Amino acid sequence: MSRRKSIKLGALIHGVGGNAAAWRHPDVPADASVSFPFYKEQALTAEAGKFDLVFIADGLYINEKSIPHFLNRFEPLTILSALAGVTSKIGLVGTLSSSYSEPFTVARQFASLDHISGGRAGWNIVTSPLEGSARNYGKIEHPSHGERYQIAEEHLEVVRGLWDSWEDDAFVRNKETGVFFRPEKMHRLNHRGRYFSVEGPLNIARSRQGQPVVFQAGSSESGIKLAAASADAVFTGHDDIEEAKKFYKEVKSRAVAAGRSADDIIILPGIGPIIGRTQEEADRKFEELAGLVSIELALQVLGRFFDHHDFSRYPLDEPFPELGDIGSNSFRSSTDRIKRTAREQNLTLRQVALQAASPKTPFVGTPEKIADLIQKWHEEEAADGFIVSSPFPTSLRDFVEQVVPILQERGLFRTEYDSDTLRGHLELRIPENRYASRPVEQHS
Amino acid sequence: MSRRKSIKLGALIHGVGGNAAAWRHPDVPADASVSFPFYKEQALTAEAGKFDLVFIADGLYINEKSIPHFLNRFEPLTILSALAGVTSKIGLVGTLSSSYSEPFTVARQFASLDHISGGRAGWNIVTSPLEGSARNYGKIEHPSHGERYQIAEEHLEVVRGLWDSWEDDAFVRNKETGVFFRPEKMHRLNHRGRYFSVEGPLNIARSRQGQPVVFQAGSSESGIKLAAASADAVFTGHDDIEEAKKFYKEVKSRAVAAGRSADDIIILPGIGPIIGRTQEEADRKFEELAGLVSIELALQVLGRFFDHHDFSRYPLDEPFPELGDIGSNSFRSSTDRIKRTAREQNLTLRQVALQAASPKTPFVGTPEKIADLIQKWHEEEAADGFIVSSPFPTSLRDFVEQVVPILQERGLFRTEYDSDTLRGHLELRIPENRYASRPVEQHS
Repeated sequence: MSRRKSIKLGALIHGVGGNAAAWRHPDVPADASVSFPFYKEQALTAEAGKFDLVFIADGLYINEKSIPHFLNRFEPLTILSALAGVTSKIGLVGTLSSSYSEPFTVARQFASLDHISGGRAGWNIVTSPLEGSARNYGKIEHPSHGERYQIAEEHLEVVRGLWDSWEDDAFVRNKETGVFFRPEKMHRLNHRGRYFSVEGPLNIARSRQGQPVVFQAGSSESGIKLAAASADAVFTGHDDIEEAKKFYKEVKSRAVAAGRSADDIIILPGIGPIIGRTQEEADRKFEELAGLVSIELALQVLGRFFDHHDFSRYPLDEPFPELGDIGSNSFRSSTDRIKRTAREQNLTLRQVALQAASPKTPFVGTPEKIADLIQKWHEEEAADGFIVSSPFPTSLRDFVEQVVPILQERGLFRTEYDSDTLRGHLELRIPENRYASRPVEQHS
Repeated sequence: MSRRKSIKLGALIHGVGGNAAAWRHPDVPADASVSFPFYKEQALTAEAGKFDLVFIADGLYINEKSIPHFLNRFEPLTILSALAGVTSKIGLVGTLSSSYSEPFTVARQFASLDHISGGRAGWNIVTSPLEGSARNYGKIEHPSHGERYQIAEEHLEVVRGLWDSWEDDAFVRNKETGVFFRPEKMHRLNHRGRYFSVEGPLNIARSRQGQPVVFQAGSSESGIKLAAASADAVFTGHDDIEEAKKFYKEVKSRAVAAGRSADDIIILPGIGPIIGRTQEEADRKFEELAGLVSIELALQVLGRFFDHHDFSRYPLDEPFPELGDIGSNSFRSSTDRIKRTAREQNLTLRQVALQAASPKTPFVGTPEKIADLIQKWHEEEAADGFIVSSPFPTSLRDFVEQVVPILQERGLFRTEYDSDTLRGHLELRIPENRYASRPVEQHS
């Protein structure tokens, strides 16, 4: 790596979520997950704070045990497109599952968002952890964890191929001669693979940023492999700086081993900072939020990681139960971490559940403390930046008004946008069209 | 029918399209099909004109012979969502194929658009006429015309079932008690059909208009059957008032036969009015536009209706060739009409092609003449209103500034919106939730 990139910041907008019980807080609009004014206000706040991007997560299965913010919420592509119309600079990144979608549609919708927004789109490719997803998509069974990643790999390859259907100078649009496009600059993918067969071309050109930015959010072995080989950015989850540094190093070195530059992939842990004027005030806010979580809700939150496993059947104050393979086909990296921590720290089920529902995070304190931590994580190569989630809807504004200025004063974060595209913000290069180097016939 | 509904107007926004050669006109931005400022300006113009809705068409296959505005254009859901963010009253209707999509995703995306827009979404369900679509979606073959409509019927049934997943009072959101929703008001569809198996529930509630409005745009026998049984509105294509009256009567009476009210379904022929200060000016504009169409382009336009059949192999000035079954599996109602007209009027291939590329329309003339025709078609029950397409991008503004005020003066069209939802504009009732009548257990 040459010059280190400046800190990157994304804002996770998730309606009433952030914390499973956050909706009960007086400051949270209880219908935030389906309120466009709420999403718009959050996106404009993030843009005022010169954030790189907003991020919309997703899921394809709910049941009675789902926590509130999953039950009734916007679908990412539609809400991101709506936000494209009311913002001008900030990147727009959303989750879409490769296990339950068609590459032609995915390629089109993200390319279309990319044009609408003038080059600000990003796709967070996920494989859908929950078994129930299969039943909403007419499948006999949810593919195994390993197979989901094989599908994801091929899916992404197809989508990226479709995004290159048109060379950047394909559309001539000469009103005099009547030549609208150069047929030799239109390319068919003709993909025939194990999971997908797609001819192409896509019926939309590349945008100003070449291709939407590709995010990857799984931290399992398969997730890291996919990220290192193909993703532009990784949304990960580490509360501990040493773990984060290990992960960072692992992904970067595997990207280099895959023939890429370490700068080609950006690592963004998610954090949910809680800011107070004093450490005590911040701690009190954390406790206030944690206090909203009942043990029943905490068991549900924990259960979701284990594919909606019913934890209410175990005694609360005995050691965390042996679960065998339960959950290993859903959020694998999270379930592995939970089981390991429980074992190492000899935790009870109650402790594990409450920790899952209200994770302890080092990012609780004064604006200076939060800024110090961000700087430290960046300097020590635990992160290239962060996806900031908001425990309360007002948290984002606090972060923008109180933490961002400190980072700006220290010269660690932009004071103005110097780019209009997401790739520009993230200092990622525009991918060359795979067909661009072919010799071109003259066509008048 | 009781009181006749007032005239309904939709604006078809189609980038450089409208006419296959329209992009060559000096007034047309040559990149309009992927220009968000262009779409936004058109939508705001339609909203200033108190239109009921904007309409975005779609297609899933292109090749070298596709006409310009199909090659590089926005995907409907994304552009409609972006328009939702910058408009406040006008309905937002888009095409999405039931042959190449998953009901769970379709239901979610339109429901999400419906929430974002505050109840202004509409889905135009189409079956995708072009054989090549199958090759972009990994299918061995494009389903036959009849099967596509069977798929459509079941697809729509599933989508509507998913839209009812939550009763309107399901989300309690009581911050004191911690009750976010009533589980007994959440419903699983548990659909198991010939083409789809979908469990549900959908992870988004119903909007203010209950369900998005469902449009149907096929005029074949199967299309009429689907429309009469299930659609809220029909986008059809008739230039001749007698044909239009016949179609209108047919659809309405079949809706009644299916147990619906004739008012439950709205029939909107597409028109592309060309307005001049005098009849001569309007005729000149029409000729100017027609003159931009080369015979090669006209053959391509004609060819697309016949699934990209290559018409350049036939002599131009001999009678329209015998085609047998060609095209019967794509745009069936259009190909039937073209073949019939050619036979009845003894037309040459050149005449048929030029007519296909620049259809003669009665809606060419002064604003008064256009308004007279609209009034006549409405009064004589040839139409409940129209989808207005714009041969030039400036045509929509001309229509709004010159034709709409005449209709308003005559008391035929609203002068202000008296509703915020698309169903409200179209005077369609809010569909009751299929689960609403079930007795409800008290839940504290």
